[in-house]
Parts: sequence; C-alpha cells; structure tokens
Amino acid sequence: MTLIDQVIRIINTGGTFNKRYDPLEGKLFVPTDNLAVESAIASMRHGCEIKISGTIYKDSLEMDSADRDLLCEIVTKVAEKSIVIVHGTDTMDKSAKALDEWLGKSNDKRVVFTGAMVPFSIDPIEATANLVMSISSVQFLEPGVYIAMHGRVLPYDKIKKNREIGIFEPV
Amino acid sequence: MTLIDQVIRIINTGGTFNKRYDPLEGKLFVPTDNLAVESAIASMRHGCEIKISGTIYKDSLEMDSADRDLLCEIVTKVAEKSIVIVHGTDTMDKSAKALDEWLGKSNDKRVVFTGAMVPFSIDPIEATANLVMSISSVQFLEPGVYIAMHGRVLPYDKIKKNREIGIFEPV
Amino acid sequence: MTLIDQVIRIINTGGTFNKRYDPLEGKLFVPTDNLAVESAIASMRHGCEIKISGTIYKDSLEMDSADRDLLCEIVTKVAEKSIVIVHGTDTMDKSAKALDEWLGKSNDKRVVFTGAMVPFSIDPIEATANLVMSISSVQFLEPGVYIAMHGRVLPYDKIKKNREIGIFEPV
Amino acid sequence: MTLIDQVIRIINTGGTFNKRYDPLEGKLFVPTDNLAVESAIASMRHGCEIKISGTIYKDSLEMDSADRDLLCEIVTKVAEKSIVIVHGTDTMDKSAKALDEWLGKSNDKRVVFTGAMVPFSIDPIEATANLVMSISSVQFLEPGVYIAMHGRVLPYDKIKKNREIGIFEPV
Repeated sequence: MTLIDQVIRIINTGGTFNKRYDPLEGKLFVPTDNLAVESAIASMRHGCEIKISGTIYKDSLEMDSADRDLLCEIVTKVAEKSIVIVHGTDTMDKSAKALDEWLGKSNDKRVVFTGAMVPFSIDPIEATANLVMSISSVQFLEPGVYIAMHGRVLPYDKIKKNREIGIFEPV
Repeated sequence: MTLIDQVIRIINTGGTFNKRYDPLEGKLFVPTDNLAVESAIASMRHGCEIKISGTIYKDSLEMDSADRDLLCEIVTKVAEKSIVIVHGTDTMDKSAKALDEWLGKSNDKRVVFTGAMVPFSIDPIEATANLVMSISSVQFLEPGVYIAMHGRVLPYDKIKKNREIGIFEPV
Repeated sequence: MTLIDQVIRIINTGGTFNKRYDPLEGKLFVPTDNLAVESAIASMRHGCEIKISGTIYKDSLEMDSADRDLLCEIVTKVAEKSIVIVHGTDTMDKSAKALDEWLGKSNDKRVVFTGAMVPFSIDPIEATANLVMSISSVQFLEPGVYIAMHGRVLPYDKIKKNREIGIFEPV
Repeated sequence: MTLIDQVIRIINTGGTFNKRYDPLEGKLFVPTDNLAVESAIASMRHGCEIKISGTIYKDSLEMDSADRDLLCEIVTKVAEKSIVIVHGTDTMDKSAKALDEWLGKSNDKRVVFTGAMVPFSIDPIEATANLVMSISSVQFLEPGVYIAMHGRVLPYDKIKKNREIGIFEPV
C-alpha cells in the first residue's frame, strides 16, 4: 500500500502550463496534446496510478460557458473520486465556481484545479511543483472544489490570483 | 488556512539530487549548499513555510556512521514535527533504519527521506517531483520514518531501490 | 594571433532571438537588454574581442523607417569594420536592403544580419549557432551586407526566409 | 553559393562534449553515438553540408596510441579537405601533435580540433559555440592542424588549456 493509494484522474484543459512555441507563427500556443503534463509526472507514474484525459485545450481567457459545461460533464462522468484539473490561471476560479455549483451538495468528489504562470516548456519547475502538489494532496481532502497553486491548497473561493505579482494568495 | 498548514523542515544531506558539474575537475560533485533544493521549491515557498538546513553534503555511498549519528541528532533537535530529508538514494534505507532506531517507540515526528536518480542540475523534473511529493505528503503521515520516491510514499522498510532499473519499488 | 583577430561589434536590435516570457502578461516580449546575446557568446569572449551595443529592442514586424535610419546611423558611427546585427527574422531583409543603400558603393564595412526562429530563452541552440557562425565568418567577407542563418552566409539579397518551413534558403 | 561552400567532415571521438548522465551507474559516460554533435548543429545542416563520423568514443584521458593511430588513419581516408574533430580537452593537444606529424609536410587538409569544458547535455551553449566556430572557420584556414576553443582558432601548438581556469589560451 502506498500513501497515494487511489487512482488519480487528471483532466488537462490547456492553459499556460501546456503552451509551446511555434516558430512559424512566432508565438506560444496551446497544443492539443498532454505532453507537458505527461513529462511533469513521468517519474511519479511508476508508483501511483494516474489517468490523463485531455479536452478543450484553450487559453483560459478563451473558455466560454459551453467549455465549462463540457468540463463539468467530464468530471461527473469519470469514475475516479480524486481529480486534478490542469487549467489556465486567468479563469481557474470561474471554472471552479461553475463546477462547484454543478456538483451540488451531494458531491463526493475531490477536485483540485492547478496550472502554471510559466509554460512547462520554458521552465518546468513551477509547473511540475504545482501539479505534483495537487496529485499528492487530492486524496487527503474533503469532497469539494479546490485550487492548488504556489504551495497552497485551498477551497476555490479562499484563494485568488494576485495579478500584480503573479502569485496565488489566500483571500 | 492552507492544506499544508505546518512548518516543514528540510534537512539537505547532499546526494545525487544536489550534484553539479565541475568543469575543472571534469566531474559531478556534491556542493556544500542548498541551491538545488531551493530552486526546486521556490514557487511553493510563497504558500507554505519551509525551513531548509544543510549538513553532511555527501554522496550517500560515502556516508559513515558518524554522519548518520549527526543526522539523527539534527532530527531530534529541530522544532518541527514534519521533516523531509534530501539524501543520496544508495544508502537512504540505511540512514532511515538508523534514524528509526534512534527515534524509538515514543517518536512523534514524521520524517520522509527523498532524493533523485538524476541531478536537479541535469534534469530538474524527477528531483522536483520527488521533493514536492514529500513536502505535500509529510503532514498527513503517522509519526514514523518513510521513503518517498517515484510516486510512492511508504514506511522506509516497505520500499527499496531496484538497482536494475533505477526505480524505487514496494517490497 | 587568433584567426578571429579583429574586434567584432554586435548591434542587438531585439527580435525573437532576445524574447523572454513575462508571467504577468502571459506572453513573450523583447527585453531592453542584451542578456541573450551575452549568454550565447560568453565562452567566445575569452578569446575574441566582441563589443555589444543594444538599440531599438523591437519585434522586427514593429520596426519602422525611423528605426532603420537609426540602425544605419549606428553602423556608420561605430569604429569597427566587422559588424553583426541581431535582428528579428521577419524584416531582416528589409533592414539589410536599407542599410546597403545607405552605405553606398564606397562602403568598407562587413555587416552580417542574424537572428533566430526560436527565442534563446526557450531553446538556446539555434540562436547560439546563428550568432557564432556570424561572428566567426564576418571578417572573411568582402565589404557588404549579408544575412547569416541556418548554416548559410550570403549577400542579403541572395537568401530569403521560407515562411512555410521557417528556414532561410538561397534565392 | 554560400560562404561555407565546402563539405565539412566532423569526426567525433567522444570527450566531455558528448558525455551524458547514466542514472543507474550514477555517473557521466561517453556514449557511443553522435547525438550531442547532431543536436548542436541541427539548424546549420539546413544550409551547409556536414558529414558526421563517430569513432573511439572515449574520455581523452583514456585514449592510447592505438586510438591516435586510428584517428590519423581516418583523417587520411576521408575525402573531405575540411575536417573538424570533436575530442576531449585533456589530450587534444597530444592528438593534434600526433596528427600533424602523421600528415607531414605535404598535407593539404585543414583539421580543427574542438571540444567542451561542460557536456552539451548539461549546458549546450559553450559546446555549441566551440563546434559552430570550428565549422565556420575551417575552410578559411591554411592546411594544417588547429585547435578552436573559447573564441580562438590557432595552430595546435600555439594554444593550450589553462587547467586552473578551464579556458584555452594562447602560448
């Protein structure tokens, strides 16, 4: 038995965490794959069972309510009770709120939103730290919707991105 | 309140995690500093209180019983109850056993040994994942001595380095 | 005496070569410094004298004719006869043409434009290769204006960026 | 026509330039492949014809006279007149001297030895700069045997590794 003994589901929706540079367009884009997520946790997967699904694949500023509905449906459908959602940081709180309302009072799932301020492809350290902290903490939480960033794991409405300094802080 | 609400103490003893390349000697060495540890968790420290001490600074194959005694004394002396020890992987189990015997039955500390198969300076991802998993898990453990590597957190005598493949596995 | 026995002047105007990621804005920007250029050639500067000036600091799509006039004036004013200009790839040919016309028939300077398809901060290899090739070749050229990219050093009007594949090719 | 209009032959003999980390052995080794060389010059090969051969694959401290004889034979046999040899820095001068004596007075080949103080796999910048400078300069040299390191390209007996600071300097 390991400490992390549950199957963890990662739902990758895109965001800065995943961005890569396109030399032809001369800009960063959100790829429609899970390479950054897979690279960040390759060594962890030897010891804990992590399933990865990808969807939406957008900068979170471009997510609309149809995207959020889709995300809510996926969370409902997956069998796992411990879920980590990789998401852009700009509207992470909005998606978390939508999901919390969708799941309602009888929810028995632990859902942690995480992401990164710097793309994994540019500097993998912060992105890896946020994702590994999320995976390592999720099964110890009460059912509910959380945000885990920069060393904090808090209910989604108790933590907020400070846009002046680029750090998530308690509210 | 954050999920990780305790002060975490990291005791850095060296090992592969910390190794850097010395161009003059043409080889990797264990530096007498904590730069790799500090870099791996820089973003986490915004949100959780982590104190770092450095000591011994050796490849774990070169650690002797005096080094292990010193490590045991430091663990006893520090005020924190949640402790992560960065250590070389080759004799991590030996130091963990020595510490467990030293602490005895009445121990109230949670101690997690971790490290890396590849130096943080060569590839930061595995090292960061191991360390962040250790920090994120330590306060949820019962008092005792553990090893956290490659997605597993287990009592030190339930996990062992498989030297054929370089992965820690349950025993 | 070294093979590269002349003082080389680098004029850094910005472009993709220099771009870095701004976590607060969530995008790449051209910094008003020469860090990428200095990092690429740090080891070369032990053995050959290279002076670096910075100016304009723009994505080359945003350069206007006033910027090009300024660049021409700087090339005229610097004492060195061997000059490398780090420039965005999109209008490198336009600036080279403007400079060639400005310098006229009696020009005695060797000027090489170079840049990168991927920022040095994301992947340093192509950027370093383009810049080092430019520095290593410039003093062997006849006076004139050249572009050096992707293994080729050619008069500016004999080489062109193939925008489909992101490679400079002979015309 | 490009400035670099000749076919360049790289003979990769190993050395620090090529070293990679072996997590199972816990140390750096010289792999029997040319991956580091190929990665350093991938972008250059779009524009200039570079052929790569690998041989010996040793730390240069372990090269013996049979290895040097083999290297001399290969230089003689290859068709190209412009040759870059990637070699460990510790006995680069010894191999260069042996080759110069082997080639004799009637030699019509330009041979440049280069290498790196830090493995390409740990920090690609110095290694890339040394190799690209060698490739860019070799065809402009008189026939003979040279060492190109740290911004200098000099006849092999006019440049020497300063072991105190890890930089090649003129003698």
